[in-house]
Amino acid sequence: MRWREPPAIYLEDCGSPVERSSYLIQLPTADGGSYDVIHDASSPAAGDCCAQQSSARHNWEMNYQEAAIYLQEGENNDKFFTHPKNAKALAAYLFAHNHLFYLMELSTALLLLLLSLCEAPAVPMLRLGIFVHATLELFALMVVVFELSMKMRWLGFHTFIRHKRTMVKTCVLFVQFIEAIVVLVRQTSHVRITRALRCIFLVDCRYCGAVRRNLRQIFQSLPPFIDILLLLLFFMVIFAILGFYLFSPNHSDPYFSTLENSLVNLFVLLTTSNFPDVMMPSYARNPWSCVFFIVYLSIELYFIMNLLLAVVFDTFNDIEKRKFKSLLLHKRTAIQHAYRLLITKQRPSGISFKHFEGLLRFYKPRMCTRERYLTFKALNQSNTPLLSLKDFYNFYEVVGLKWKAKRNREHWFDDLPRTAFLIFKGINILVNSRVFQYTMYTVVAVNGIWILVETFMLQGGNFFSRNVPWSYIVFLTIYGVELLLKTTGLGPVEYLSSGWNLFDFSVTLFAFLGLMALAFNMEPFYFIVVLRPLQLLRLFKLKKRYRNVLDTMFELFPRMASLGLTLLIFYYCFAIVGMEFFAGVVYPNCCNTSTVADSYRWVNHTVGNKTVVEEGYYYLNNFDNILNSFVTLFELTVVNDWYIIMEGVTSQTTHWSRLYFMIFYIVTMVVMTIIVAFILEAFVFRMNYTRKNQDSEEDNGIVLEKEISKEEVVGIIELYKRSSAAPETSQLQKIVLQMDKYGQMSTTFLGRRSRTKSDLSMKMYEEEIQEWYEEHSRKEESQAPLQESAPASTSSLKPLSLRQRSQTVI
Amino acid sequence: MRWREPPAIYLEDCGSPVERSSYLIQLPTADGGSYDVIHDASSPAAGDCCAQQSSARHNWEMNYQEAAIYLQEGENNDKFFTHPKNAKALAAYLFAHNHLFYLMELSTALLLLLLSLCEAPAVPMLRLGIFVHATLELFALMVVVFELSMKMRWLGFHTFIRHKRTMVKTCVLFVQFIEAIVVLVRQTSHVRITRALRCIFLVDCRYCGAVRRNLRQIFQSLPPFIDILLLLLFFMVIFAILGFYLFSPNHSDPYFSTLENSLVNLFVLLTTSNFPDVMMPSYARNPWSCVFFIVYLSIELYFIMNLLLAVVFDTFNDIEKRKFKSLLLHKRTAIQHAYRLLITKQRPSGISFKHFEGLLRFYKPRMCTRERYLTFKALNQSNTPLLSLKDFYNFYEVVGLKWKAKRNREHWFDDLPRTAFLIFKGINILVNSRVFQYTMYTVVAVNGIWILVETFMLQGGNFFSRNVPWSYIVFLTIYGVELLLKTTGLGPVEYLSSGWNLFDFSVTLFAFLGLMALAFNMEPFYFIVVLRPLQLLRLFKLKKRYRNVLDTMFELFPRMASLGLTLLIFYYCFAIVGMEFFAGVVYPNCCNTSTVADSYRWVNHTVGNKTVVEEGYYYLNNFDNILNSFVTLFELTVVNDWYIIMEGVTSQTTHWSRLYFMIFYIVTMVVMTIIVAFILEAFVFRMNYTRKNQDSEEDNGIVLEKEISKEEVVGIIELYKRSSAAPETSQLQKIVLQMDKYGQMSTTFLGRRSRTKSDLSMKMYEEEIQEWYEEHSRKEESQAPLQESAPASTSSLKPLSLRQRSQTVI
Repeated sequence: MRWREPPAIYLEDCGSPVERSSYLIQLPTADGGSYDVIHDASSPAAGDCCAQQSSARHNWEMNYQEAAIYLQEGENNDKFFTHPKNAKALAAYLFAHNHLFYLMELSTALLLLLLSLCEAPAVPMLRLGIFVHATLELFALMVVVFELSMKMRWLGFHTFIRHKRTMVKTCVLFVQFIEAIVVLVRQTSHVRITRALRCIFLVDCRYCGAVRRNLRQIFQSLPPFIDILLLLLFFMVIFAILGFYLFSPNHSDPYFSTLENSLVNLFVLLTTSNFPDVMMPSYARNPWSCVFFIVYLSIELYFIMNLLLAVVFDTFNDIEKRKFKSLLLHKRTAIQHAYRLLITKQRPSGISFKHFEGLLRFYKPRMCTRERYLTFKALNQSNTPLLSLKDFYNFYEVVGLKWKAKRNREHWFDDLPRTAFLIFKGINILVNSRVFQYTMYTVVAVNGIWILVETFMLQGGNFFSRNVPWSYIVFLTIYGVELLLKTTGLGPVEYLSSGWNLFDFSVTLFAFLGLMALAFNMEPFYFIVVLRPLQLLRLFKLKKRYRNVLDTMFELFPRMASLGLTLLIFYYCFAIVGMEFFAGVVYPNCCNTSTVADSYRWVNHTVGNKTVVEEGYYYLNNFDNILNSFVTLFELTVVNDWYIIMEGVTSQTTHWSRLYFMIFYIVTMVVMTIIVAFILEAFVFRMNYTRKNQDSEEDNGIVLEKEISKEEVVGIIELYKRSSAAPETSQLQKIVLQMDKYGQMSTTFLGRRSRTKSDLSMKMYEEEIQEWYEEHSRKEESQAPLQESAPASTSSLKPLSLRQRSQTVI
Repeated sequence: MRWREPPAIYLEDCGSPVERSSYLIQLPTADGGSYDVIHDASSPAAGDCCAQQSSARHNWEMNYQEAAIYLQEGENNDKFFTHPKNAKALAAYLFAHNHLFYLMELSTALLLLLLSLCEAPAVPMLRLGIFVHATLELFALMVVVFELSMKMRWLGFHTFIRHKRTMVKTCVLFVQFIEAIVVLVRQTSHVRITRALRCIFLVDCRYCGAVRRNLRQIFQSLPPFIDILLLLLFFMVIFAILGFYLFSPNHSDPYFSTLENSLVNLFVLLTTSNFPDVMMPSYARNPWSCVFFIVYLSIELYFIMNLLLAVVFDTFNDIEKRKFKSLLLHKRTAIQHAYRLLITKQRPSGISFKHFEGLLRFYKPRMCTRERYLTFKALNQSNTPLLSLKDFYNFYEVVGLKWKAKRNREHWFDDLPRTAFLIFKGINILVNSRVFQYTMYTVVAVNGIWILVETFMLQGGNFFSRNVPWSYIVFLTIYGVELLLKTTGLGPVEYLSSGWNLFDFSVTLFAFLGLMALAFNMEPFYFIVVLRPLQLLRLFKLKKRYRNVLDTMFELFPRMASLGLTLLIFYYCFAIVGMEFFAGVVYPNCCNTSTVADSYRWVNHTVGNKTVVEEGYYYLNNFDNILNSFVTLFELTVVNDWYIIMEGVTSQTTHWSRLYFMIFYIVTMVVMTIIVAFILEAFVFRMNYTRKNQDSEEDNGIVLEKEISKEEVVGIIELYKRSSAAPETSQLQKIVLQMDKYGQMSTTFLGRRSRTKSDLSMKMYEEEIQEWYEEHSRKEESQAPLQESAPASTSSLKPLSLRQRSQTVI
């Protein structure tokens, strides 16, 4: 059957499916019959397909739905053992898988986390009565209970028990419940370290999948990390013993007086936080003692710490690749499952458009008919009316494309009258010219230098005068004119579609707001003025390396954000523990007996007439409420002078408190190393990719081109009309009208989406992917041979090379 | 001609070479004739090869020498344009290329560098009169002049001028000369910043080739580094302006009072060195101001700094690969050059053993005849008496092998009488048993815990009692017994051939020395006691990852040392500059007007009866002599609290001094990033290698096995006797005698060397190497076609897979 025969694709395909959806058996059908009845009734009647049409359609609808669920599971990397098994489970699954439910999950988790702002020790402004916050907590926990019960209904008891994360969540929920009730009954808060476990509710949210992946990656990197950490600690102990023997005879050296001091100080030295100081007493006595410290730092800091990074980086690379592989194969399996549900007994070699359309109705309900058909056509490589498994494998890459009719006119002003056209065309040429660009860069540079000089001339004081400086107005006018020219020259839509233009636009807008604030003397807005220098960032567009770096930065942003969130979750746990133990222990002049007394001093001298305040300020780095704790923890993360905070707290509590700080240091070291490894990996990967594809320099994501002829559109409209299932043919009819108007026989559509890391990986591991597929299909065959895929053809499959197909694109 | 016919290899091969050595033309020969005479005389006489034998031999000797020089140039990566072009140049080349000359070079350079210890500001103990050190300097410079004149003679004036490094050296030499004379005349030292350039004499030394490579690598990494650095500084400036606008209204905040302060403090903040402090005044006033600092640190420290590492790491990887490629191809060209000089017109398809032996006599004069023959046999893959170019390409891999007869006896005690044999055999089995090993590990672990507990119990004071602790004796006895058992069981040679055993041995020896010191009350040796914990390192043999890490560490050690030396050279330059400008500016109580006064304070309180000394110690971090400068620079490298040193010096000089410290920070940042990138690259490479070769887990370097039959040995002896050129046949005769004694017809020899980075790279880039070779030979052919290499055969060459050949090894 040839492609050019339009009627072929909208065959009235009501043959029975090869495989039946598992939900059908338990479904109470209208006539009370079981699936087998329907099945038996429809299967022999291959010719008279309208006989049992109503029940067959119901039958198919179920199949579409299950296939869509399989594809969703493939996309979300949900394991198939959580696949809903019957109609009851299906209902729960559908209930628990929509954005409303996800939002509820997320907001409950956030509510629980935010409660720590109001619970004692609370942020002063947000303090709530115990009764209030305990009730709120109970309410939130009730919601979690509801969510879990839905999940149990969907998963079934057995799977629920086997699902580790859910079980941990249930246990935590139970503990939290009891504690909340205890608090409510006793009307006073006890030591509730378990609050640190609240994070699990956030981690378990559907929207926090990236955080879960990060956590998994951190835990997977741990074994090699711990190995090297042990090496590090071993050398530390050896050097502590050595240092104790060498320096403890020197009584003016407080750092090595006991073995414990020796250990603690070498641990701090590892972070370099006490560096020259720890050496000084012994160095003053014998200059050669510096050798001990130089050797220690060279081994520990410059060698083993870098080794740690190397090991984590290596593990990270390895994990990334394996993760990508398993995700890829999981998706492939999902596609196979879905495929089996969509083929008919009559035509087992592929999926017809009708069934594909049915699947998409469940998988992406928002997609319009035109897009469904274009997706089908984009997938269909073989020019037959049926979609083979091989074609179907590219489902995930193609389904995300946004389709748009290829414009016939080049500019937005093409339809305008001649004079206007010429003016706009002139502006367009001007705006796109190099001269214009470089002039703007020069203006920005001059503005930058101007701001620098201007700021340099101000020596504090009255720089927020009531007068708007004229330079500000001049530059802003230039920017305004540029913005206007660009908007008119390129058209608003095209102008704002570039990220850099968007940036220009918002900075100019902010600067304008700043001007307004200045002009109308609105004090609170004065800080907008300081955003002006940001316009200088435009200068970085000039060099390719910067464009690359900034592009990569934007590409990485979601992942970076999730890593940041992961770090915040660790912060939260430590903040809760810190608050429970150290709230209120640090205050001005608290630590006069310790070695760091100076940093906590707060004295009000009176010298002559003037009052001199001597502030050590470190009492501000406390655990008095959760916001303060976060800042303190950030300071500990930055590591510099962290031992002052540690010693301050230690002097007010016991010396076991040091454990808290040391463990926190090690944990942040792990997370930070992972972050560094991630940034390294991402950039090195990207740079390798760029090096590998030097010819195709500029790529604006994935682009695909498809042509649709008029007959095809008419055919589809016919199909929809006949099935009378969907009344959404208006858009298609509009296309036909437009074609008629311009007298075209076909329209070309462009499908676009931005390039993801997965696409890059596809390209990078091209050869290996083939091996994985072969290995995977070999395994599959040995387990459960697929009827529709002949082994020989499966092994020669190639992943859809989108690059290759987008060659014909403008 | 078959291999098994022994006479074939020692053909009296006195045919004339295809190519003549370039030195012959100018050589004054005995009969006053030119090369052409000899050439013409010998070439037609292919049959009567003894006719012009003497001059032909002279002819060949020249060829051997030039070929050896080519191979040396290939090995040392000397460019061929420095190849000596005539006999005079050859003499100079030979003079300048031996270890005596190299040593002279090195010692002169070191003398010049060490002079800074004695020149004002000198290390007090080493101060010399101006007349003395200036004379010494002049003497050293004279030696350098001599070296340079030799080099000029070798290179010829034109090449000398074109050789950049040598020209720079000449200029520096000139400046130094003038300055030394000025100092001698004026009898007083002026500001001599140019002393910082003395490093160039060290860098130019033959032995410092690795340092030169490092420097080149650093300079090659600079362009991308500078790009990212600019991004970093740009954000710094923007944040400085922002910070100035935001925080300068707060008069209690000294950090942002002017734009300059703002910039300096944000630069210091980049190193985290002033972190919580710089935030505190504004944080105390408004808690939300911490956002400014968190954002700044997140962008600058956690993002851009890591980006810097990523970019350098990426560039580094790329450079490493390109360096490896160019080195490989350079060696290949060198081999081709040498090959052309060694083949004869009569037999242009390969090198006979006689000529190969002649080459080795010049290339490795210390090699004995047996090894020369084994090298020839190892290279000869084709089993013909001639060495083809394809075989000869493996020259560098094979020539480094150390050959040893494969032992017939397994243990050293095999020849002893029965009873002794049984005893030793028993010890051998015991020593090699798992139980023994784990027992020893347990003892070491117990000892470690013992030392820890013991040290923990000591609370300072008299722990170096006159009594030797009994635990010390017990453990030392156990270690002594173990050492004895192992030495007897394995034989001393085998015992000490393992690095770990050597380590055990030396630690035990040191511990024994410590015992002696304790027993004989020798006070100065007491510190040896503290080496005991090092024995714990043995525990790390247990885990594979540690063995890997430590092995890699040892493999990397030479490279690490050269990187360290490179850092020291930078230190030297900065130390000289620092001394010239800042010597003597910092002293106790020097900086009472600055913000860091406390750190420089030195006060003698009298509280009651006791004298309390309050020491800030930072005055010790000065530039008063070169050793102090080095320590100070190390402290600046570690970065923590470096601003205290900077501010101290700045308060005593001008605020331009900050430039010195900031530039030093940036330079060390570059070098440190390179070091980190190097360690990362090396370990990741190694781990990838290990992953790629998981099956061949244990490898002890490169091992090659070759069998030699008796006839062959006899044949070679014959050859030597006949040519009467070398009287070194005694070793060969010993082999024959030994074979006779044991009645063997052949002996097997093992060639060993340790695996180098180059071997690993060969393995890793296996496929790419083929492409490089093909590309290279294509280029070669287009430029100057080699007569002896048929293009088809060249392109199908494979690099010698040593792994493959060492399969047959025990």
